[in-house]
Amino acid sequence: MASEFELIARHFTPAAPGPDAGVPLGVGDDCALLAPRPGLQLAVSVDTSVAGVHFPADAPADAIGHRALAVSLSDLAAMGAESRWCLMSVTLEDDNDSWMAGFASGFHALCQASGTALVGGDMTRGQLAIGVTVMGEVAPGQAMTRSGARAGDVLAVTGALGGGAGGLALWQRGERDLTHPLLGRYLKPTPRLAAGLALRDLATAAIDISDGLLADLEHVLTASGVGARLEPEALPLARGLRESLGEKAAWRAALCGGDDYELLLSLPGEALGEAQRRLTLEGLALTPIGTVCSGSGVSGVDLDGARGWQHFGGGEP
Amino acid sequence: MASEFELIARHFTPAAPGPDAGVPLGVGDDCALLAPRPGLQLAVSVDTSVAGVHFPADAPADAIGHRALAVSLSDLAAMGAESRWCLMSVTLEDDNDSWMAGFASGFHALCQASGTALVGGDMTRGQLAIGVTVMGEVAPGQAMTRSGARAGDVLAVTGALGGGAGGLALWQRGERDLTHPLLGRYLKPTPRLAAGLALRDLATAAIDISDGLLADLEHVLTASGVGARLEPEALPLARGLRESLGEKAAWRAALCGGDDYELLLSLPGEALGEAQRRLTLEGLALTPIGTVCSGSGVSGVDLDGARGWQHFGGGEP
Repeated sequence: MASEFELIARHFTPAAPGPDAGVPLGVGDDCALLAPRPGLQLAVSVDTSVAGVHFPADAPADAIGHRALAVSLSDLAAMGAESRWCLMSVTLEDDNDSWMAGFASGFHALCQASGTALVGGDMTRGQLAIGVTVMGEVAPGQAMTRSGARAGDVLAVTGALGGGAGGLALWQRGERDLTHPLLGRYLKPTPRLAAGLALRDLATAAIDISDGLLADLEHVLTASGVGARLEPEALPLARGLRESLGEKAAWRAALCGGDDYELLLSLPGEALGEAQRRLTLEGLALTPIGTVCSGSGVSGVDLDGARGWQHFGGGEP
Repeated sequence: MASEFELIARHFTPAAPGPDAGVPLGVGDDCALLAPRPGLQLAVSVDTSVAGVHFPADAPADAIGHRALAVSLSDLAAMGAESRWCLMSVTLEDDNDSWMAGFASGFHALCQASGTALVGGDMTRGQLAIGVTVMGEVAPGQAMTRSGARAGDVLAVTGALGGGAGGLALWQRGERDLTHPLLGRYLKPTPRLAAGLALRDLATAAIDISDGLLADLEHVLTASGVGARLEPEALPLARGLRESLGEKAAWRAALCGGDDYELLLSLPGEALGEAQRRLTLEGLALTPIGTVCSGSGVSGVDLDGARGWQHFGGGEP
């Protein structure tokens, strides 16, 4: 069997970062050394993806690599931070070389697409799981948080909803055509980094939709001390969702399904047009789905006992 | 059952960091926001500890919390970086509240002792494992790396060796008296942060001993392009090691045992006295154990096929 060091060296020694990457010392020592840009704050987050909980263990290896990084980058997107660096921990049952090559290719491709330098990590033995720490930069006062939504703001979402839950449902039914748009949405979500950067001076609050629209909206409302009225008929459903799941389940997936990794934002109504123009330049829709109001909780939607995804006792999407 | 959010809130919402902690936004949003100090580099590392691989699943919960953070902080110590912030990922089979309370108390106590602010993390379901990302600061050019050892340098280690492997052997034999010094060394190692800070302007290279002295020495020699001659009789054996394991196994634990988390440093011979004086102020020994020479590999010790700990195919200590 290959040793831990050989496996890491073979698949996870990236090309030396360029001079703009801010990496005076990369992979291979006890720590990496990074050079944050003067005057900026560091935005940091970690997400762990566990096989059988967050993704199917038999998903394509490159999708698992992409997805593990994407869910962490999505947190940087929600803050409006620019992605700079990441660290990766892989726990593996055994060292399947071709699996590792696929995993690494998916991970590296998204690193490159998002301008993120892989600067370290570790590899351990156990149930398949991947933890990814991301570090980005944002000027003081520019980050979007969950706590700034104000009564009267418009609520809007990027892209389309329900694709994550819809893709998972298809996968569980045995669908393996990876060109199916819903499977793509589920297995290889696109972190909305460009949207976060484009909207951070317009939005009053933001969150990424990982636990489901309703659950993540509640996080924003609680942090901001406000309520919201949703217009469910306005929800942008992912392409193919109605056809694949039927009307009711599609609507439920959009409201409560996890794993969409779109951004939910609040912003003043007069900024909506400008925000939509900016995202059009990114090829991305921004759809108003309700309004922020004083009070608490969500009205306008029959919750029907549905809640977003939580580990340990939460309902499934 | 408690939800993920409740569990995190109950045990891992630390006291609001003080104004000196450099945490403009702490736990509770998509990302934490940190304020790195101007002109310093960021030293970052991640380590994952898996139950049954890196620690016994039935170890005391507070020791598991302490240890998971300690092994990551040890990497900052080896660079001579000042610890500032950490992120923690816990994967748990179920949510045992009293276990979590113990785990959190061990983790928080070491955060406090090391001046490290916990700024985020996540909790997932699966085989017990803990991933900890640490972030520290160091002035450009001040970090110790593995690559600076020069022929003629003295090799020295902090503290004592073999305690990690000795403690593990005792645990496996059923010893549960946590006041036994070897069990303490194994279950609650002390990251040598103060030693790293004290010696970073004297040492030419450094590494923390996690894989075993010989294996970690080889990392330094390879990175520096040099060889070494060890004086095995000079190795400072952990207290109680000979009595517990016998002469031969004690020596082997000191040479090849993992989990000591002492620092191995190279430094010019004329700096040794000053380095020892500085560590005496920390109550810590610094023992010369050999010299760096030109060439490659290690002489002076009968390796007897022994190598340090590696996952995936490496020999056990």
